[in-house]
Amino acid sequence: MKALHIFKIGGNIINDTNQVLAFLKKFNEIKGHKLLVHGGGVLATQLAEKMGIKQTIIEGRRITDKETLDTIVMVYAGLINKNIVAKLQMLNCNAMGLCGADSNIIKSIKRPIANIDFGYVGDILPKGVDALQIKNILDNNIIPIISPVTHDGKGNLLNTNADTIASAVASAMSLYFQTTLTYCFEKKGVLSDPQTDESYLPELNKETYLKLKNEGIISKGMIPKLDNAFRALENGIEQIQICHANNITTNKTTAFIGTIIKL
Amino acid sequence: MKALHIFKIGGNIINDTNQVLAFLKKFNEIKGHKLLVHGGGVLATQLAEKMGIKQTIIEGRRITDKETLDTIVMVYAGLINKNIVAKLQMLNCNAMGLCGADSNIIKSIKRPIANIDFGYVGDILPKGVDALQIKNILDNNIIPIISPVTHDGKGNLLNTNADTIASAVASAMSLYFQTTLTYCFEKKGVLSDPQTDESYLPELNKETYLKLKNEGIISKGMIPKLDNAFRALENGIEQIQICHANNITTNKTTAFIGTIIKL
Repeated sequence: MKALHIFKIGGNIINDTNQVLAFLKKFNEIKGHKLLVHGGGVLATQLAEKMGIKQTIIEGRRITDKETLDTIVMVYAGLINKNIVAKLQMLNCNAMGLCGADSNIIKSIKRPIANIDFGYVGDILPKGVDALQIKNILDNNIIPIISPVTHDGKGNLLNTNADTIASAVASAMSLYFQTTLTYCFEKKGVLSDPQTDESYLPELNKETYLKLKNEGIISKGMIPKLDNAFRALENGIEQIQICHANNITTNKTTAFIGTIIKL
Repeated sequence: MKALHIFKIGGNIINDTNQVLAFLKKFNEIKGHKLLVHGGGVLATQLAEKMGIKQTIIEGRRITDKETLDTIVMVYAGLINKNIVAKLQMLNCNAMGLCGADSNIIKSIKRPIANIDFGYVGDILPKGVDALQIKNILDNNIIPIISPVTHDGKGNLLNTNADTIASAVASAMSLYFQTTLTYCFEKKGVLSDPQTDESYLPELNKETYLKLKNEGIISKGMIPKLDNAFRALENGIEQIQICHANNITTNKTTAFIGTIIKL
């Protein structure tokens, strides 16, 4: 089995064009098959504000109404995705920007209404990632750049969390490749002291994760990221790591700066 | 050589979701290899207005400043493109939305400044269309849906006229396929009386075109469309036609309603 290196870059990197470019240069140096999933950052919210779209927050979670969905599609699948692709082409990296509807690579279902109607949010279906379509693209030596927009097969686009997409794609691709998944963000890894960037844990297993979560040391956005990571490991992904966007590497002789996630 | 049918849908269809869906159903029925280029319509202008972006018009032509370019990328390569793809997936048509940067399919150069600086407008380079990359996509039984955004290979996205893209792509693809090109819009064809839809010309050759242009009967947006069409015919495209979006067909036994363009 060939290797496939999947990277995910998140919001706080996306918001800064210089940081994006620095990351893309590192990404371009990664040898072999690779793939990038990107998040959205604050650009969609800023655009929604500019356009006077009222954001509805229920119990601390944003509701994706039709206008918000359109904004997300424009910013994530359009502006961010195509600018990443253009920058990679400049670096002679043959990138292709895709959302989940393109070539039907990620099918989801509109989240069922329990207590809250989250609106146009898509939960990826169990066999929702078409690994073969993605493999066909990789086999043509094209680098897929995936935006966090999926579709329901009924003509609707849906907003899906980028971390979840990264882990679902990595799980599905592990059928064809020895797949690694790296979550890149603005910190050096999972921190044991949220105030100190140098406190990153070189390794994190599930037992320690649950302990640190209970103690409130691991909190907020890191929780769904790690839940996704452990789920992906259980689904057969070779290796998962969390690191600063500047510190990505697949070179096993280089000391890795970041957190390696283990079961 | 296999056949490839290229269609272009323009602004006045794009603005109406019902008309888009009706067209896509017809498009889905076209057998064999096919490809769609879409224009942008008024949505980008409407969004720019909502966002308070001032539109600069010089000598009747809109200038694509950076903010306008971003709006175009969001609306054309994002909102319109991905919604078309989602609708086609609903119809079990395996569509993939692309702009010119994706897989480097269309490379352009920022229009040189003569009297007017048009801003971020891209003129397609002579060998700017990578027909082989597009062929690879078609060979995987995927239907490319191309938005009118190109790139300069230096990291910049550029705004390019959709009619020009359709004709440049058709010209390039005629190396590998017997290529037909159909411009679809809201009229029945090239009209000899602009007030009467039924006055469409079943055929138009270059001589008649130049005559009707001189007489002012063919005017405005139809001129670049036809200039593109004649250029594409000279570049080896099998057949070019202009018709209403509802009247597309490749069935040679069906009487074609529209204008067939001939040299």
